[in-house]
Amino acid sequence: MTPPKLTRAAFERHLPILQWSKTYTRDTFTSDAVAAVIVTIMLIPQSLAYALLAGLPAEMGLYASILPLVAYAIFGTSRALAVGPVAVVSLMTAAAIGNLGLTNPADYALAAITLAFISGMILTVMGVLRLGFLANFLSHPVIAGFITASGILIASSQLKHIIGVPAEGHTLIQIWGDLLANLTLMNPITLILGVTTLGFLFWVRKGLKPLLLWTGMKPRLADILAKAGPVAAVAATTLVVWFFDLENKGVAIVGTVPMGLPPLTAPSFDPDLWRQLFVSALLISIIGFVESVSVAQTLAAKKRQRIVLDQELVGLGTSNIAAAISGGYPVTGGFARSVVNFDAGSETPAAGAFTAIGILLAALLLTPLLFFLPKATLAATIIVAVLSLVDFSILKKSWGYSKVDFAAVAATVLLTLGLGVETGVSAGVVLSIALFLYKTSRPHVAEVGLVPDTQHFRNILRHKVQTNPELVTLRIDESLYFANARFLEDYIYNRIACDEPIKHVVLMCSAVNEIDMSALESLEAINERLRDLGISLHMSEVKGPVMDRLKRSHFLDDLTGQVYLSQYDAWRVLTGPRAVDSPAADD
Amino acid sequence: MTPPKLTRAAFERHLPILQWSKTYTRDTFTSDAVAAVIVTIMLIPQSLAYALLAGLPAEMGLYASILPLVAYAIFGTSRALAVGPVAVVSLMTAAAIGNLGLTNPADYALAAITLAFISGMILTVMGVLRLGFLANFLSHPVIAGFITASGILIASSQLKHIIGVPAEGHTLIQIWGDLLANLTLMNPITLILGVTTLGFLFWVRKGLKPLLLWTGMKPRLADILAKAGPVAAVAATTLVVWFFDLENKGVAIVGTVPMGLPPLTAPSFDPDLWRQLFVSALLISIIGFVESVSVAQTLAAKKRQRIVLDQELVGLGTSNIAAAISGGYPVTGGFARSVVNFDAGSETPAAGAFTAIGILLAALLLTPLLFFLPKATLAATIIVAVLSLVDFSILKKSWGYSKVDFAAVAATVLLTLGLGVETGVSAGVVLSIALFLYKTSRPHVAEVGLVPDTQHFRNILRHKVQTNPELVTLRIDESLYFANARFLEDYIYNRIACDEPIKHVVLMCSAVNEIDMSALESLEAINERLRDLGISLHMSEVKGPVMDRLKRSHFLDDLTGQVYLSQYDAWRVLTGPRAVDSPAADD
Repeated sequence: MTPPKLTRAAFERHLPILQWSKTYTRDTFTSDAVAAVIVTIMLIPQSLAYALLAGLPAEMGLYASILPLVAYAIFGTSRALAVGPVAVVSLMTAAAIGNLGLTNPADYALAAITLAFISGMILTVMGVLRLGFLANFLSHPVIAGFITASGILIASSQLKHIIGVPAEGHTLIQIWGDLLANLTLMNPITLILGVTTLGFLFWVRKGLKPLLLWTGMKPRLADILAKAGPVAAVAATTLVVWFFDLENKGVAIVGTVPMGLPPLTAPSFDPDLWRQLFVSALLISIIGFVESVSVAQTLAAKKRQRIVLDQELVGLGTSNIAAAISGGYPVTGGFARSVVNFDAGSETPAAGAFTAIGILLAALLLTPLLFFLPKATLAATIIVAVLSLVDFSILKKSWGYSKVDFAAVAATVLLTLGLGVETGVSAGVVLSIALFLYKTSRPHVAEVGLVPDTQHFRNILRHKVQTNPELVTLRIDESLYFANARFLEDYIYNRIACDEPIKHVVLMCSAVNEIDMSALESLEAINERLRDLGISLHMSEVKGPVMDRLKRSHFLDDLTGQVYLSQYDAWRVLTGPRAVDSPAADD
Repeated sequence: MTPPKLTRAAFERHLPILQWSKTYTRDTFTSDAVAAVIVTIMLIPQSLAYALLAGLPAEMGLYASILPLVAYAIFGTSRALAVGPVAVVSLMTAAAIGNLGLTNPADYALAAITLAFISGMILTVMGVLRLGFLANFLSHPVIAGFITASGILIASSQLKHIIGVPAEGHTLIQIWGDLLANLTLMNPITLILGVTTLGFLFWVRKGLKPLLLWTGMKPRLADILAKAGPVAAVAATTLVVWFFDLENKGVAIVGTVPMGLPPLTAPSFDPDLWRQLFVSALLISIIGFVESVSVAQTLAAKKRQRIVLDQELVGLGTSNIAAAISGGYPVTGGFARSVVNFDAGSETPAAGAFTAIGILLAALLLTPLLFFLPKATLAATIIVAVLSLVDFSILKKSWGYSKVDFAAVAATVLLTLGLGVETGVSAGVVLSIALFLYKTSRPHVAEVGLVPDTQHFRNILRHKVQTNPELVTLRIDESLYFANARFLEDYIYNRIACDEPIKHVVLMCSAVNEIDMSALESLEAINERLRDLGISLHMSEVKGPVMDRLKRSHFLDDLTGQVYLSQYDAWRVLTGPRAVDSPAADD
């Protein structure tokens, strides 16, 4: 009865919930529930704040933190990842929809829902087609640069709420230009409220836990209290605004947040809107996926668990589709909340589902209390959260290690700040690939000689080696393919244009992992040219897969020389019994 | 007095005419002049025909064969290249301007002039910035596929003139759809004229020269007469149309061709037009450059001369700018005419300038004679010329050698035929790069062992080698960079998840030409993970440039194992005096 078994295994692979739910115990439940409570407390103000950052009504942040978490609990493979609205994706959502030039808030919300839906479809389809490896084309330094620049952009964009002036824009210059131009409109009460909250939150982050521990409190409790800082700030500032009637003194507040279950929504299927949003949705999908997978892999490694990339795509894809049908906007796995979830002891994705229940209760019961919540408080929450993302050390690190990586990081940072998130991250990816192609198109070629008393060959410029004037051995440090085929021809023709009595050229192919058709044609041309000059062309250390392919062409029949298994064999045969130049005689 | 000398050398490098003109003799002049006469005879009907193919008035073909040739003679480095309108670039010009939806012939001509100007600027700037290597990103198979598909498209597009029906379009389906739909409009006289000319030209190409040689004619003269076939066809069919008044029986003729010097023209500087034409101009520039350089290099190699890529860009760039200011359209070095030029004995670029004088005389004196020239004759000239470009053997060759190259060729051919030249060639380039990146993102990793009685290590799956159960040596057959960093992590984690008592993992880096920052971070993660499992990580045969870079990071300080100069050193140290598994005991 094989078919049913196969079906069962396939089901479990595509529905990870079937795996972990089998061993679910009361203990696991307790751990998950405690983690869920802590994450819920952290997530309520964050969800409201990120919706504000995305330019959406606050309740959409709550809705995006309910059904998507349930979807991820069913389809995701990470046991610690906490899904929901995150800073960078919220900023990208704002940029994507900002480009559309919409004025009606209902259209704006519909665009966000549609963006989540398209992004969900892209991620799910990529997962089904096993395209998870595409995320690898975002190099680590580009991601690091992008996250840092995004953090600066986000913090800057929230300053307007702290000082109470209008400011728009998706680039650093636009934002700061607006801020400075409108500085005279500053609202002093908002400023005091904002700066105080900001100071309080920074202190909670750095100073509260040590203080609580000093009073003798248990570390676990101290941790939870420190995480509750933003909730305390929300409660306190809401009370202050209500009590002193600050709304009528120019302090911007959240206002009416509808009470109740998330609404049932549907994305727009207007082809024009899809066309306009598609590239943005693709970028959001990839950035969201990469951010989420980095967190998930870091946490999984700590418990020797494995993340399945293609299934993660499905998990995040269904989360975004869930967001689209329940009034949310694009979501992904968040760094800070996942770490909190992990530290709080969550053991299975069920913790995410329990968090969803917590946020649902908040949406059902707490929203009237949010009416007087000042926007400055939410902005302060965001600023404190994103400044921890800003880390310029990647610039210094990459400068020291590799100028190419540095160029990619610097371009990503500058273009993200100067031209916005979408241009920045696209340029980072394109530049990384272009620089890689450029490097491989001008490969390192080393002329090698024999290290005395070994069978080993190294660069004549770096090591004391034996050489022979009739034999030139070139080690090509790159696969041979269309982009560097002509370079190799030029290199060899230049090398043999000398007064030495060269009789043999050996191409040492230990680093040649591939010879494509363009390169094969170049090798044929080189072989022919050398034949005309009375020089034989040999090859050594050709790898199995490369040799298999060469055997399928006419090249080996026409080759004037031989293919040697090892460079040492080539050396022995071609230098023969005659004396070779000792290292001292090297020129 | 160094500065003047420097200036002189720089002048000569950028103005190759200063080099060859110094040794110009009467003999060289005679050779060049004879070659010029032959090329002129060949170029007159071709210039008219290709202008027709580009959708332009016939005289623009003549104008494009005058000043551009002079510019190339001054700035170009090839001594045999014949510049002018060519088939593929004419087709691409038709496609580029066809997209604009222009109806007024004057606008159409202005767009062609502007296209030549933009293309000239692109080529010249690329030359000055030394970007000639960019042409290498067009792989040989993609070019071969593109040229073959273009040949089919061009021949198909000319059939309408042969059978005398209207037909438009830039894809095979559009062209043949139009041809078949309009078949009832066929003009029998045009058909007879066209098919007869086509048959005559094919016979001239294949059968005339052997016949002349059989009569005892000297080979040189037989060759020239065979090349004059199209001119004979032009003269004969023009006379037939005039004599039998076929114009009034529905045979399409060239009509009035203005007599005189090429006009002084200027490109449009309308930013909208530039934006619309820019991508087309870029594609035309690159395709034209690649086609031209391939011919030039082939011919230069026969005489041991060298082509300077970056100076060639300047040569072709100034030729196109010259075309734009003298009523022409985009030009490049043509294959057939350059071979004729070479075979006819041209020795310097002056032959091109003399050809220009020949075409100028034709424009001044012969244009009234072209009034009754039937378009069918020009179409037949084009069909015979381009069918020699069609060569499907590249499909078979690449299928046998490499499926990846085959995929790139097949996509280029199908997309060129199905969606037009611009989509086809762009897809070919993008696909070549994407497939290369995909291959490098999943590198070949071989587990290697010692070949007995040598110091050489090969794949345990392909060779009888010695291994040791405590030591796993992995040879990574690719540079390590962002696209494959995660792949390596996964590969190693999977390899060590077994029951063997592994104590050492050695990464043999003879094929690793680069370790970028992303890969460095992956190596750090692997080192840490292996340390937790009590396994040391070693490296061997790390190349000089890679080692230099690793020394600039903290990686070597944290590495749990050693870096060995050769894999044999690693083997000796790590297996120690204990016995190793003999090949027979391999599992």
